[in-house]
Amino acid sequence: MLTRDQNTLLVQTGPDTPMGRLFRRYWIPALLAEELPGPDCDPVRVKLLGEQLIAFRDSEGRIGLLDEFCSHRTASLYFGRNEECGLRCAYHGWKYDVEGNCVDMPSEPANSKFKSRIKQKAYPCVERGGVIWTYMGPPELKPEVPELEWAMLGDGQRFVSKRLQESNYLQAMEGGIDSSHVSFAHRFNLDDDPMHSGTEGNKYLKADTRPKFEVAESDGGLVIGARRNANDEEYYWRITQWIMPWYTIIPPFGTHNPLGGHAWVPIDDTTCWAWSINYHPTRELREDELAAMQNGDGIHSKYVPGTYRPLANKDNDYLMDREAQRQKKTFSGIEGISAQDFSLQESMGAICDRTKERLGTSDAGIILARRRLLAVLDDLEDESLPGLETEHQRVRSTSILLPKATPFKEGAGEALHMVEGEDFVSI
Amino acid sequence: MLTRDQNTLLVQTGPDTPMGRLFRRYWIPALLAEELPGPDCDPVRVKLLGEQLIAFRDSEGRIGLLDEFCSHRTASLYFGRNEECGLRCAYHGWKYDVEGNCVDMPSEPANSKFKSRIKQKAYPCVERGGVIWTYMGPPELKPEVPELEWAMLGDGQRFVSKRLQESNYLQAMEGGIDSSHVSFAHRFNLDDDPMHSGTEGNKYLKADTRPKFEVAESDGGLVIGARRNANDEEYYWRITQWIMPWYTIIPPFGTHNPLGGHAWVPIDDTTCWAWSINYHPTRELREDELAAMQNGDGIHSKYVPGTYRPLANKDNDYLMDREAQRQKKTFSGIEGISAQDFSLQESMGAICDRTKERLGTSDAGIILARRRLLAVLDDLEDESLPGLETEHQRVRSTSILLPKATPFKEGAGEALHMVEGEDFVSI
Amino acid sequence: MLTRDQNTLLVQTGPDTPMGRLFRRYWIPALLAEELPGPDCDPVRVKLLGEQLIAFRDSEGRIGLLDEFCSHRTASLYFGRNEECGLRCAYHGWKYDVEGNCVDMPSEPANSKFKSRIKQKAYPCVERGGVIWTYMGPPELKPEVPELEWAMLGDGQRFVSKRLQESNYLQAMEGGIDSSHVSFAHRFNLDDDPMHSGTEGNKYLKADTRPKFEVAESDGGLVIGARRNANDEEYYWRITQWIMPWYTIIPPFGTHNPLGGHAWVPIDDTTCWAWSINYHPTRELREDELAAMQNGDGIHSKYVPGTYRPLANKDNDYLMDREAQRQKKTFSGIEGISAQDFSLQESMGAICDRTKERLGTSDAGIILARRRLLAVLDDLEDESLPGLETEHQRVRSTSILLPKATPFKEGAGEALHMVEGEDFVSI
Repeated sequence: MLTRDQNTLLVQTGPDTPMGRLFRRYWIPALLAEELPGPDCDPVRVKLLGEQLIAFRDSEGRIGLLDEFCSHRTASLYFGRNEECGLRCAYHGWKYDVEGNCVDMPSEPANSKFKSRIKQKAYPCVERGGVIWTYMGPPELKPEVPELEWAMLGDGQRFVSKRLQESNYLQAMEGGIDSSHVSFAHRFNLDDDPMHSGTEGNKYLKADTRPKFEVAESDGGLVIGARRNANDEEYYWRITQWIMPWYTIIPPFGTHNPLGGHAWVPIDDTTCWAWSINYHPTRELREDELAAMQNGDGIHSKYVPGTYRPLANKDNDYLMDREAQRQKKTFSGIEGISAQDFSLQESMGAICDRTKERLGTSDAGIILARRRLLAVLDDLEDESLPGLETEHQRVRSTSILLPKATPFKEGAGEALHMVEGEDFVSI
Repeated sequence: MLTRDQNTLLVQTGPDTPMGRLFRRYWIPALLAEELPGPDCDPVRVKLLGEQLIAFRDSEGRIGLLDEFCSHRTASLYFGRNEECGLRCAYHGWKYDVEGNCVDMPSEPANSKFKSRIKQKAYPCVERGGVIWTYMGPPELKPEVPELEWAMLGDGQRFVSKRLQESNYLQAMEGGIDSSHVSFAHRFNLDDDPMHSGTEGNKYLKADTRPKFEVAESDGGLVIGARRNANDEEYYWRITQWIMPWYTIIPPFGTHNPLGGHAWVPIDDTTCWAWSINYHPTRELREDELAAMQNGDGIHSKYVPGTYRPLANKDNDYLMDREAQRQKKTFSGIEGISAQDFSLQESMGAICDRTKERLGTSDAGIILARRRLLAVLDDLEDESLPGLETEHQRVRSTSILLPKATPFKEGAGEALHMVEGEDFVSI
Repeated sequence: MLTRDQNTLLVQTGPDTPMGRLFRRYWIPALLAEELPGPDCDPVRVKLLGEQLIAFRDSEGRIGLLDEFCSHRTASLYFGRNEECGLRCAYHGWKYDVEGNCVDMPSEPANSKFKSRIKQKAYPCVERGGVIWTYMGPPELKPEVPELEWAMLGDGQRFVSKRLQESNYLQAMEGGIDSSHVSFAHRFNLDDDPMHSGTEGNKYLKADTRPKFEVAESDGGLVIGARRNANDEEYYWRITQWIMPWYTIIPPFGTHNPLGGHAWVPIDDTTCWAWSINYHPTRELREDELAAMQNGDGIHSKYVPGTYRPLANKDNDYLMDREAQRQKKTFSGIEGISAQDFSLQESMGAICDRTKERLGTSDAGIILARRRLLAVLDDLEDESLPGLETEHQRVRSTSILLPKATPFKEGAGEALHMVEGEDFVSI
């Protein structure tokens, strides 16, 4: 349970908010690389942290991310012409390069110096891991480009999708931190999930619905251990990494299945992008795996055609099927791991009112993540922040059996760190 | 005409408003019984007086009406599993019984006492007269279950429907109190209305559009007499009962036709449920009558499929037919008694601005109903309130011819009281 | 760039705002004459300057424009019966004539004097030039009916349409004042526009995108000269008239093509009517011209059937065609002169935030129009205002070649004044 002020601090991410300033210290997943397929492709509207922007790739392939509205008369650059190394406003022809410089102003006298005084807001972008990232913070504090494991792999080893979530980012991210709901919301679907197949983890998940949580701070955020009974001597540990400000890594199910992870990125205060990534550090994804992911299975989604909005959404009650619920084909009546999560998260309202909740011991990860986010607000000006340095990002989640007496961080040891080219640890 | 403050007092019914507190002293029609057809049926979202709730019937057939949002993390219980005598949240499996007790908390340690400290908001419910009623007020002040005539009859003697009205409850209820509009809004349709057929009442209604109103306080609310000319010696009186807080009984048209009544129940401040009831105290409804009611005739409505929203609604201009209006098939161009009323009521705006109206003598019933509602706000803490006691509810409307010199209340006499098993009085 | 306060002053036009009071000093284009086709026709909802009104033509053909909501109980008169020289409310039968007098009150006693005390808000109307005009200001200050050239011509010499624009009126009107955008937004479509055909103007427009602006005050508003290079000795001048409060006249393209003009009339603060008029002072419009106009070509629009909303609108991204944009069939990807303008204007947001713009020398007309509107707010009570007198309205735009040394107003001379029955001046 939070005070109203604490909740407000956590959920608001616009330009002039504390959390908005914090998030602007990090690189932000902005678009799928495929949304800007090549030089001079169509400009794309992008909204991030409440700012309306326009993305384009110029004739040389450079990526621009500009204020959507032209400096001149505030017409949208969405209608602009992307040609000859710049985006030209369709109203009076002002043209900007990827850095926001006004490189042509054909409506003013040829000898005018006016254009040198115009600077369209522009954010630097890089492409890595199938994602176009941007940095919206103070230039002098720009950190290194993220080196999350999934972002550093070869293209064949990774599948990235994004999905519109019609709620604040925080309740979405809390779902990614929360290992406890898996035994319920996904209970009847663990066996058919492509990421879960053929492992003994499902067995423990279903048998013990009351995980005991232990949470430790990491350099980048939190390491969240959820302990379930396995046998007389051992516990089954599912250990989740939360990397500031919004990345979660799902504990694996066997080493033969791909890993999964998420990024939970605010569009504005009432919607967010749920980024979903499957990847395998030591092999390429198989065709059948890719086909399932492209089909929207597992943590990915089926879309309303032409959009990134899920086909099952609040306007159609997430295609609720009460009969399937009654027959224990699904726990909530909603089909698909992804929709099972976001239907419940969106049902809390656009912004969850955390003054009304009653948290238990199984919410330890969520409680500490909120606490850490709020605490970091005091260090907004620090050069280093949790999760900012690439070393903080080179971590792994794991699922292991440990003797009952062994503390989980000690027992997991190197399994929590990424080692390039080497496999991860999972039962 | 009201002051802005008076209007605000009357129209706002949320938990912390005076009128909201008053309404919470009464039993409230919450759902049609058919919406919860049997044990372990689908949970149903319910909104009443601004509160979002979830209704269900447990394995034993008991009715629960809980806060929609789980005490734990505020996910909607709409996605919950209704099984084994409780509703289980789909997120982390917390389970509530119909009284809001947390009877299972499988996400917490088996020996946790946490669940005994959790109480989901729950309102008591009863089923009577085809309606599920709830009581949302202070438990120690809970009154007896309503004994309105239509609620006490056998199932075959009654037909109940509900309809979404997209306006504040008050302008809807005022339509129910107002006998004067019948001569206009329904003018060309009185003869084909099933409740009106074969009576001389229509004749007087059309001949004298200028009823003279006399209004008297009753124990339960108001008795509103509308006097029209009949012949040299007599007046035709249509006498309407308004029973606090929101019931109206339509004066009858002959004793061979069913009676009609309404309840006008706030969903929130801009929408309400218009409950419509036909009933006959001394006989079962005929098949042809039931067929017409099910078809949405008379005071009932045709719906957008799968909803209780009328097919003729503000998004389609109530299926306005100007040609029918010109040809005097309908007075306003709208078809159907019910839609003729709510189209005009909704056209006042979501909340009627009563600072702008100019009331005449024909508005006496409305004026006094508002006055009485406002006056009762001073007695909010009283044990007894008008309309609260079952004796207040055992009343009837009537339509009679009275000698010109006879005062209407005196002339109507026992016709205004319900006598079980005996017929009502009407010409 | 404006201050926030200046922008607020300019964009708000409700009854109690300074600009709203200014606009109410002028006759206002309210409906197309065809919307009220004859005596006792269907009433039509009209919203102007934030006021909800109802228009009708009575049995004698007189035009009424009343407050939409009945004085009695605020039901909408849209459902009223238009018959026997008045509009009768469908709720209780109160009937109003075109002056707002309550001429019948059948719900009250026959001898009641109440109706004489009821006055429904009513605005005087006149029909001229295919348009029904209304005056919403103080009766004692009512000016003469407008004598804009297009309004005074015979029916065959004029084509008038209106179109819903989903933005504040000011950014729409600024588009009409702004001659500079023509070289860009319409660049690839000048030659196929019916108003532009067969003239040398297009050549200069495309060759010189950097017009130099000179602006002078006129009695009625502004005369805005946009100078482009023509040849060694001459400039090509396009001279636009802006007539207070919201009329613009497009400079002509040859004298064989019809002229064009607009009125930009606030519906409320976030929508406006864009009136578009083509006309020729000395000949009737040809059938092929009329066919093109009726088809929505040029400054006119294709509509969503049954509405005045453009078929290309913000809900369908204005039917953006990126391929046509790439192939230089259109500059912005949007088809049609009209949609090219309003797509950009609406893209600024419902109300353009003028604190963010950066104006250049080509925006001189817009800057001075705003300045003049703001300045006139100090003279709100004056009997005469710019554009109020018919003499102010009898002006013409022109497009001419002038020797480089000749000042444009001097060079244009009588070309800027309307002379009945004589042709206008244009190359």
